[in-house]
Amino acid sequence: MSKVFSTSLRCRLPALLFLFQGAVLVIFALFVTYDEHTDAASQPAEADPSANQVYAIFPLFQDIQLMLLVGLGLLLAFMKGYGVSAVACNFLLANFSTQWALVVQGFVHYGQHGRVHLGLYNILTAEFAAVTVLISAGAILGRTSPIQLLLMSLCEIPLYVACEWLIVSYFQAVDVGGTITLHVFACYFGLGTSIALYRPGLQLGHPMETPSYISDLLSLVGTMFLWVFWPSFVAVLAHQGDAQHRAVLHTWLTLSASALTSFATSSLLEKKGKLNLCHLQNATLAGGVAIGAVADMVISPAGAFALGIVSSLACILGFKYMSPFLATRVRLQDQCGIHNLHGLPGIIGAVGGIVAILLVPDEAYGPRLHQVFPQRGLLPWNITLEASLAGENVGGSATQQALHQAAGLGVSILVSLVGGYFTGLVLKLPFLAQPPDQVCFDDALYFKIQESTENSSAEQARGDLLVPLKDKA
Amino acid sequence: MSKVFSTSLRCRLPALLFLFQGAVLVIFALFVTYDEHTDAASQPAEADPSANQVYAIFPLFQDIQLMLLVGLGLLLAFMKGYGVSAVACNFLLANFSTQWALVVQGFVHYGQHGRVHLGLYNILTAEFAAVTVLISAGAILGRTSPIQLLLMSLCEIPLYVACEWLIVSYFQAVDVGGTITLHVFACYFGLGTSIALYRPGLQLGHPMETPSYISDLLSLVGTMFLWVFWPSFVAVLAHQGDAQHRAVLHTWLTLSASALTSFATSSLLEKKGKLNLCHLQNATLAGGVAIGAVADMVISPAGAFALGIVSSLACILGFKYMSPFLATRVRLQDQCGIHNLHGLPGIIGAVGGIVAILLVPDEAYGPRLHQVFPQRGLLPWNITLEASLAGENVGGSATQQALHQAAGLGVSILVSLVGGYFTGLVLKLPFLAQPPDQVCFDDALYFKIQESTENSSAEQARGDLLVPLKDKA
Amino acid sequence: MSKVFSTSLRCRLPALLFLFQGAVLVIFALFVTYDEHTDAASQPAEADPSANQVYAIFPLFQDIQLMLLVGLGLLLAFMKGYGVSAVACNFLLANFSTQWALVVQGFVHYGQHGRVHLGLYNILTAEFAAVTVLISAGAILGRTSPIQLLLMSLCEIPLYVACEWLIVSYFQAVDVGGTITLHVFACYFGLGTSIALYRPGLQLGHPMETPSYISDLLSLVGTMFLWVFWPSFVAVLAHQGDAQHRAVLHTWLTLSASALTSFATSSLLEKKGKLNLCHLQNATLAGGVAIGAVADMVISPAGAFALGIVSSLACILGFKYMSPFLATRVRLQDQCGIHNLHGLPGIIGAVGGIVAILLVPDEAYGPRLHQVFPQRGLLPWNITLEASLAGENVGGSATQQALHQAAGLGVSILVSLVGGYFTGLVLKLPFLAQPPDQVCFDDALYFKIQESTENSSAEQARGDLLVPLKDKA
Repeated sequence: MSKVFSTSLRCRLPALLFLFQGAVLVIFALFVTYDEHTDAASQPAEADPSANQVYAIFPLFQDIQLMLLVGLGLLLAFMKGYGVSAVACNFLLANFSTQWALVVQGFVHYGQHGRVHLGLYNILTAEFAAVTVLISAGAILGRTSPIQLLLMSLCEIPLYVACEWLIVSYFQAVDVGGTITLHVFACYFGLGTSIALYRPGLQLGHPMETPSYISDLLSLVGTMFLWVFWPSFVAVLAHQGDAQHRAVLHTWLTLSASALTSFATSSLLEKKGKLNLCHLQNATLAGGVAIGAVADMVISPAGAFALGIVSSLACILGFKYMSPFLATRVRLQDQCGIHNLHGLPGIIGAVGGIVAILLVPDEAYGPRLHQVFPQRGLLPWNITLEASLAGENVGGSATQQALHQAAGLGVSILVSLVGGYFTGLVLKLPFLAQPPDQVCFDDALYFKIQESTENSSAEQARGDLLVPLKDKA
Repeated sequence: MSKVFSTSLRCRLPALLFLFQGAVLVIFALFVTYDEHTDAASQPAEADPSANQVYAIFPLFQDIQLMLLVGLGLLLAFMKGYGVSAVACNFLLANFSTQWALVVQGFVHYGQHGRVHLGLYNILTAEFAAVTVLISAGAILGRTSPIQLLLMSLCEIPLYVACEWLIVSYFQAVDVGGTITLHVFACYFGLGTSIALYRPGLQLGHPMETPSYISDLLSLVGTMFLWVFWPSFVAVLAHQGDAQHRAVLHTWLTLSASALTSFATSSLLEKKGKLNLCHLQNATLAGGVAIGAVADMVISPAGAFALGIVSSLACILGFKYMSPFLATRVRLQDQCGIHNLHGLPGIIGAVGGIVAILLVPDEAYGPRLHQVFPQRGLLPWNITLEASLAGENVGGSATQQALHQAAGLGVSILVSLVGGYFTGLVLKLPFLAQPPDQVCFDDALYFKIQESTENSSAEQARGDLLVPLKDKA
Repeated sequence: MSKVFSTSLRCRLPALLFLFQGAVLVIFALFVTYDEHTDAASQPAEADPSANQVYAIFPLFQDIQLMLLVGLGLLLAFMKGYGVSAVACNFLLANFSTQWALVVQGFVHYGQHGRVHLGLYNILTAEFAAVTVLISAGAILGRTSPIQLLLMSLCEIPLYVACEWLIVSYFQAVDVGGTITLHVFACYFGLGTSIALYRPGLQLGHPMETPSYISDLLSLVGTMFLWVFWPSFVAVLAHQGDAQHRAVLHTWLTLSASALTSFATSSLLEKKGKLNLCHLQNATLAGGVAIGAVADMVISPAGAFALGIVSSLACILGFKYMSPFLATRVRLQDQCGIHNLHGLPGIIGAVGGIVAILLVPDEAYGPRLHQVFPQRGLLPWNITLEASLAGENVGGSATQQALHQAAGLGVSILVSLVGGYFTGLVLKLPFLAQPPDQVCFDDALYFKIQESTENSSAEQARGDLLVPLKDKA
């Protein structure tokens, strides 16, 4: 990566984006039509308008969009000179990935008679796919060009759709909040990519790789947005009614436990007990990652609470001890610490789900057993995992459900790590406008940043007041 | 404008506001009462409380308020020393305009037996009127005093209410998201005002007229808020059910196409392909402006997508080529580029509506034809536009609907441009505390800004750390 | 307080928090179970999932969380070097207090057969309790350690729960938006604490006690969040239907009147009519504090409007004249001016409620009289306040309701002031890591703030550009 290519986006970024928009437009024109909830012509005259699917989805959908574009955008804007890139590239990548997922998922999940049927629900599931890419990008933030990020999305989205199908439809693993299919997958895909893109020149850090006072503050505000709306993200795909209520309740409990545990642990591990903002920005959300796998299960309030404590502990220990180890020994650069926030808590959540399935008796679910575990108890006899792997109809015992969850977790880690690594190799192709080491983490490389006539952008804030200072000098 | 008046708000601003609040209070006390949804005494005992109108409006209403006060406020805060004014004056103007619209619309639309009936729905429609003023103000941001802005609101709101009645009730033009009635009107009203307020002294720019790093970032975050909640704004006045669902779906699609097209176009037009933040802050929203006129029509997902592409293209080309042309040749200063974001996409959306009405067959609407086009097909015979202009009951063919849309667009441009120009002349009256050229775009003129004992506000952020710097000097 | 203790949080903060989390976990495991809305096993098979309580609460709950963590966090971040502490400590204290209130309220209100039943509703009411602590903390912001704030929460929450029971259940005072039980209580509790924690060394101010340009702007954005979502806070506990609609309508009207009145009054009182940001950040919300006591009553739109005008007037006059008086004569330091925003408007609202009860005839409520005033008119004969104090079943006339409201207000002020003072004495215990006078209002005391290699955090924003400046020097 020490060879220096042109970093100009001109021609390359417009060509890629215009081509992509043209292709999406053609696909939409040829294959995409309204679904039953948006099609005017097929509405029964006596339909109750307030029963339209949009009302069950839209408020939570807006919450999730706010999380992604404002919350995640600000959270990523923690470096002193990379805030604009963080917010803008996050926005670019979110839209690109959602559109691409709309197309891929459209043909895989929503096709019928050669037409893809479109409503707000499709955009919601496509945004889940997009989240995967946004998380993965955290591993390589600041060391890649927008073009590389878009290429990563092109590779990752189809793999995500395939892997999710394998986990949820084939193995029938339960994962309402996307812990296994989304967070774990995104984390190891991003790490795989990062391994391939390893830069020895950044091994010892980079002067721009630190926060400023204001970027740290804005990043913390980003965490607040994510923290507040996280329950919407976890609950949106749960069954309406008590299941969705449980998902909201569990998510709040686990997030709150994560919040207090993060303050406690950070103070314990840092010199003079000073709270580390990086810990607070990330570990307070760890419970939210973990809870996804068990959000609608009957894990009891105490269970959700405990999960939040353990997840944030793991997250902070990861930042303190594992990240430096990985960086120096495994040559794995993880810019935003996604392994600490998405990898470790994700695995903890998946294992927690297995434990919950094995420990909680069926009676605790009452009439909701089949709602939470669609394939549980449908068949009176036991079917082995091998049979299920062979494609037979699965069902039966809690043990088998637990095995399927474990299989799902394994598949997620394996597929994403390998897929991410090969994607990383693709991203090493020349002509992708990758930044040279010395101008990584710098907004000015791809954005027209206002160069002040004075010497600092800080002075721009109240430039007039600074004239005397210059005169003195 | 080179004559220098006093810029003190003292006496003048309090007098205007206290007078206004007193008048509103008296009007409320004498004429305003609860509507059927808020009046306790008239509730039938067996009414279903969850069917109250508040539940259909309130969530979207909150979204729209967040767009206006946080999203638009931050978006306007893009200049290095004018962020406080942008957020605060936007807040002041929003409240003043909404209250004034509540009164005007109250007597025009919600009066009955000499009493105005008030519920949340009134506030919602009044906020639509207020948006008009907030957009118009973008043309003259930083070059006017708060008093001038309030006077503009006093003139613009009644004209908006009249013009909207003309377009929607008289011409029966369809415009669920306010493209014609709101965005186009607001744009040309603002431009008319700006022409009248032309300042040759600012022709060559002003040192404070540029962003700082942090103001650019905050402005981009403002765009994120607007982008996320834009579907709420477009859909809130659509019919419940599939029409509202279509409005949400179309708005998301068009916004997403605008987002990617903006990145592509900006990179194509700028030196070294560097992305221009001004383009991203504005053009990513262009599709949202255009979609309003067609949001609930059956334009197909591809149609919505195409509209987003074309709108953002037009918006960026406007910023790049048209704004400089207007500024130098037409002597039209458009501070925030509202012609690029609201004028051009608004006209594109209105024309798109005409095309859609002419091309989409009635069958595509099935039972919803009369819901989307209230006067379509109600009469079996054709009525000419002249007849409709003469006040006769209109109805009939798609061609006529298209003509009415065109008439609405024309009326909106004409009325607003002329009204805006005369309003601008009013704003040139002396004693309105207008800023002299040299202190335009400066928060310190009307706000008590913390003067730091050190030399820069940037130093204030961590003043303690700066002491050594001063000692050295 | 001039004695200097260790300010290290190490050991003390982790010990307190881990102990607390452990205790909560044990209590949850032993005593807490699902309520009827979250329990899977007890769901009737034919239950309508869309009727689950979560749908009536969740959207408003999210609004309130956003108010607390983003809105209040940013509002408190107005000091130049204390923004991180404001946002982070607010977050810490909110979670700690909500969990603690969940436990206390659980046993008091939601226990049954030795088990506490938990759903989202519990978290909502616990967050109301937490708001009390967050408001009280405003009086001593920057002069206390996180440990002191947590100790305050430990004392304040049980007192709040007891006092609220006394006011609402015993005196049957009506207070749907928490004006008396929450705002007034929180204010005088905070002031009581502040009196006990008086620091003569800070009498003449502190160099870090001022805003910077950017902190002032962010604080104003915080106000916008609070302003936008305030109606959710006031209305969430009102009866569904027209009562909730009235609460939303009244709150919007009163807030809007407060907004314009604040601009007018601030300009009137300041030199050259320059608007004071502190006034705008606070007084624009004053009406929201006052309206809580009367939000669902039939006070007419004009009544709500008038309340907003009076409240914001009182708030600004408080900032201008009362705060300096209290600080110099009563030795009462009120960092964020909570007496102006919560105390004065709270009392005005409570008195307004009494006036409304006495003036509005019962007919105006029609069938909703008992919904708004649960104990009104249930008994045909009059019962004196003494009888009610003696524990007899209350009911009857408007006069009695008014007396009960007055009793509630008196109890709230008295209990909170005394309770706060004694809590303040507890907080003076040594070993609570309280900051010495000279490092008050400084993030760097408890947080690991990025020390820049250059001299100012402002330089960090675009450090590269500053190198020339240093070279010159």
